Amino acid sequence: MAKMLGTDKPAGMEKPVQYQVTFLPDKIQLAVPAGMSVLAAAAEAGVELEGPCGGKGTCGKCRVKLVEQDGEEWVRACQTPVNRDLVVEIPQAEVSVQRKSDLSRRAVLVDLASGVEKVKLKVASPSLEHQVADADRFLEALGRENVKLSLEALRALPGALRQADGLVSAVLCEDEVLAVEAGDTTERLYGLAVDIGTTTVVAALVDLGQGETLATASASNTQNIFGADVIARIEHATQKTKGLEQLQHRVLQVIRKLVTRLAAETGVKEEEIYQITAVGNTTMSHLFLAVDPANLAPSPFIPGFSRLVRLKAKELGLNTAPQAQVYVLPNIAGYVGADTVGVILATELDRKEGVNLAVDIGTNGEIVLAAHGKIWSCSTAAGPAFEGAQIEFGMRAATGAIEKVKITEDGLLQLQVIGDSEPKGICGSGLLDLVAELVRSGVIEESGRMLGAGEGDALAPALRARLSTTGSGNSFVLAEASAGRKEAVVLTQKDVRELQLAKAAMRAGIEILLSTAGLGYQDLDQVLLAGAFGNYVDKYSALAMGLLPPVPAAKIQSVGNAAGAGAQLALISRSLREHSIEVARQVVHVELSSRSDFQEKFVDALSLQQEI
Amino acid sequence: MAKMLGTDKPAGMEKPVQYQVTFLPDKIQLAVPAGMSVLAAAAEAGVELEGPCGGKGTCGKCRVKLVEQDGEEWVRACQTPVNRDLVVEIPQAEVSVQRKSDLSRRAVLVDLASGVEKVKLKVASPSLEHQVADADRFLEALGRENVKLSLEALRALPGALRQADGLVSAVLCEDEVLAVEAGDTTERLYGLAVDIGTTTVVAALVDLGQGETLATASASNTQNIFGADVIARIEHATQKTKGLEQLQHRVLQVIRKLVTRLAAETGVKEEEIYQITAVGNTTMSHLFLAVDPANLAPSPFIPGFSRLVRLKAKELGLNTAPQAQVYVLPNIAGYVGADTVGVILATELDRKEGVNLAVDIGTNGEIVLAAHGKIWSCSTAAGPAFEGAQIEFGMRAATGAIEKVKITEDGLLQLQVIGDSEPKGICGSGLLDLVAELVRSGVIEESGRMLGAGEGDALAPALRARLSTTGSGNSFVLAEASAGRKEAVVLTQKDVRELQLAKAAMRAGIEILLSTAGLGYQDLDQVLLAGAFGNYVDKYSALAMGLLPPVPAAKIQSVGNAAGAGAQLALISRSLREHSIEVARQVVHVELSSRSDFQEKFVDALSLQQEI
Repeated sequence: MAKMLGTDKPAGMEKPVQYQVTFLPDKIQLAVPAGMSVLAAAAEAGVELEGPCGGKGTCGKCRVKLVEQDGEEWVRACQTPVNRDLVVEIPQAEVSVQRKSDLSRRAVLVDLASGVEKVKLKVASPSLEHQVADADRFLEALGRENVKLSLEALRALPGALRQADGLVSAVLCEDEVLAVEAGDTTERLYGLAVDIGTTTVVAALVDLGQGETLATASASNTQNIFGADVIARIEHATQKTKGLEQLQHRVLQVIRKLVTRLAAETGVKEEEIYQITAVGNTTMSHLFLAVDPANLAPSPFIPGFSRLVRLKAKELGLNTAPQAQVYVLPNIAGYVGADTVGVILATELDRKEGVNLAVDIGTNGEIVLAAHGKIWSCSTAAGPAFEGAQIEFGMRAATGAIEKVKITEDGLLQLQVIGDSEPKGICGSGLLDLVAELVRSGVIEESGRMLGAGEGDALAPALRARLSTTGSGNSFVLAEASAGRKEAVVLTQKDVRELQLAKAAMRAGIEILLSTAGLGYQDLDQVLLAGAFGNYVDKYSALAMGLLPPVPAAKIQSVGNAAGAGAQLALISRSLREHSIEVARQVVHVELSSRSDFQEKFVDALSLQQEI
Repeated sequence: MAKMLGTDKPAGMEKPVQYQVTFLPDKIQLAVPAGMSVLAAAAEAGVELEGPCGGKGTCGKCRVKLVEQDGEEWVRACQTPVNRDLVVEIPQAEVSVQRKSDLSRRAVLVDLASGVEKVKLKVASPSLEHQVADADRFLEALGRENVKLSLEALRALPGALRQADGLVSAVLCEDEVLAVEAGDTTERLYGLAVDIGTTTVVAALVDLGQGETLATASASNTQNIFGADVIARIEHATQKTKGLEQLQHRVLQVIRKLVTRLAAETGVKEEEIYQITAVGNTTMSHLFLAVDPANLAPSPFIPGFSRLVRLKAKELGLNTAPQAQVYVLPNIAGYVGADTVGVILATELDRKEGVNLAVDIGTNGEIVLAAHGKIWSCSTAAGPAFEGAQIEFGMRAATGAIEKVKITEDGLLQLQVIGDSEPKGICGSGLLDLVAELVRSGVIEESGRMLGAGEGDALAPALRARLSTTGSGNSFVLAEASAGRKEAVVLTQKDVRELQLAKAAMRAGIEILLSTAGLGYQDLDQVLLAGAFGNYVDKYSALAMGLLPPVPAAKIQSVGNAAGAGAQLALISRSLREHSIEVARQVVHVELSSRSDFQEKFVDALSLQQEI
């Protein structure tokens, strides 16, 4: 660990002083050198704690409770050095659960053969005259000779056969018997579709018999303790001892937690989940499987794998049936992953008439253009601004987040806050609204410069009063400090720059794809906004700011978490799963970094006002 | 644990006092209730310690060192209650290693396609124009599209491809790439053949390219801490919480140790072992896979499985390549296992002309009769007497074991001791010699009764002097106490009875098979003695005692560890592995317990003198 502190002491120096840190509630203990931050210690211990700002002390999401003899104290783990033995209580991470998903609609329209099925069997009893092994009598009843029994099925057989008088249910997947359950359980067969985002992991529990999503759950991807974006994660995987294992450990930990919550919510048993599909960007897919992503970072950005990967849940240590089949959907390129394949599956972009654009805005932005039977993709490092990270008061779309903003003629701020509570911060859609409105009303110039205190004579007085200038620059006050909140909620100049860069990258990507296809924005029949952000963003704000090309607002449609929906479709339909391989092969990836026109289009797109 | 002690205290009673036991050298600690034996504590802790007498205090093999502040003391773990905190040092278990095996002879004659192969490949480098994933470029070089990459191969790829300029070696097994290694390693491909005996586990390390056995290693099956024979093991698996897991843990622990020793001995890396075959009796096969053997014990003796089971080493936690294929050869019946299939493979019994009998004498005795294209099998619970267990001074064929015995006209004992050392005990072949010689010279009557002190007027005085009678019965002194050995080595009346029962069971089984086939002993062309015991037994002693039918000695041939040899053949030859399935199907199993004539033939065979 001394190495992580960057101390290059000459040999012979005394060992660094070590302190004991105990993490509650799991009572995980470890000794760390004095001076290491509590956040780094938590990372070392594999303790679930997030830190999307990467230890900069800006996001405040790594707050933990120090339990001392004389009381308790909340601190930011990244700013707290271990300088004595500590007992640290980690707050329960937030999991959002939603019963059903709006995406079960399409389920009934697809081929509902998931590839895993349950069959009820009556197996004959043995006798001294018929000394036939359990497995052989079982396979006889199944009427199939050339199937393989999983080790788990083999282990379950002797007990299951004798529990309900030879009545058992077999779980079959292609030429393998995955499991044997006592009695008739054919009504209970479940699957899990996981969308591994850089920032958020979403899992859907699906009834494979009905093709129906029972519930979805989401939680932060606690890998963010090692950095907010994929580049930081790749660096961590590559440069730290056990870095890759740490990252895999964290994403699996989150998924296990989601499985537990989904099971509790729906009354499904974890071990009744027999099939899993996973999508994510290419880096996330690599980290999920602990495949070294090192070669994704430098040009020519080569993934370890692109093809669909199939394995068993126990190879990853997931808390479903250990023998559950896991399908990691294929990637398209180093920065266009299976999540984009999921978007294409869910939106049927490859089968639609006309010219269609799909934009998935997350920590990375993926853009897909489908036109006349061809598909192109590209990706931009949008940064986490759209997800509320690396923004001073950025937060996920949770209670207290400002999600919509209007500024009246009189310069009055109308804030829509999630949960109708006092504002605590601002999420991606609120940020976009706010900046668009501030540009419209003149608080932010087209160039992105924010007016400071004393400027803006033409502004309504109510607005003017909100301008503030401190040592760290100009900012705009959204809500003053109050009884429940020590500090004012503000938008800083730096926040505007973050958003500006992210939006310019997205827009430049869209322009490059259109020009590659020989098309203009006038040719677009539809623009689909995917991702959590895309679901909540105000399309007029997106248009006003020039995040999207100037198409009629009616052509813009939010499609929700289309990546996750794609994973759900690939879960319930084997043919769609196989189609995902076709899709990934078919897409022509446009590498923006090799395009000489990218910089130009990027600079063009920096303006915060749509030019028509 | 209170349960294991058999205390059924009413609720509300105080908790039993607990003591801390620390096992060295692995520093495994656990708390156990006062009064539990150190052996039971070791069993609970999963500590490697054997106890073939099942805790009766007779075998002395569970000796451990108590480390106290004032010194050390050797004690028998089974006889030592935990009545204070204890530090217990477990002696290093004995592993015998042999370079090469005498069974590599047949290897060159068989089809040398093991089913796993290594291919050298040169994989093209990627570029910005050729942004192809590692896995895809690799499969392109392999020239096969429809293969699956194991998770381990996928994880190895990015590193391996960049280590030797794209030169890699792929390990292939059917439609799966098991592994990818950097550079040309095609000369290094190894396999492991394991023979899991109730008493001893033998493993052979095999060069799969050459079909040559490099070394074999053997060690006690430390499951014996839970009982000497399969019935005791099944009871433990069935009646104790976690009993099945404990038994599996122990056999895997032994195999891991053998792998480590074999690797060290030969310079092969553990992770270069890519294929494994295992044979054992049916109970051992079940315990190896942790399949509940409960239904093997009561009639109608139904195994969980009989067919060949295929899985990966990591599913068992073996210390070979985790993705190594493991093949557990098929069983024939509840008490005729894959080890017998191995014997048939190695001796080609199913392909031989004439009438051939194979007898595998171990803790269980398996008998196979092949005649005119048909094969019959049966098994008898021989008990561990032939392996030196449950005999007062019984021991494995190791240094200090009396392995051959002659008694001269003058009544002088000629002992052949392994390692030319002072005798410490007697192994199976020595026991048979000794009893045969004692019957011949009149010390033991045909009925099995041993003369006591003062009897045997007609005996040579040197012999007479060795007769002893104590409170526990008559015994025969083989070697007096000496400087190096506190007690005299003796053969007891009880030992003779153990042997007598075992031999009668074997012989009755042989008679039943012959009569089932409508044959007599005169029809036998060959009698093959398999197993460690069969390898060393004096065939004249076996004949004299009536263990075998009265055939000419020339027809009797020892074939060594034929079960293990069969496992080796099935390891190096996929076609022989497939043939093993045929063999297992073909054998007609004769269930002795359902034969009304068994008791009669058993009683007939009790006499210690061959009747011709």
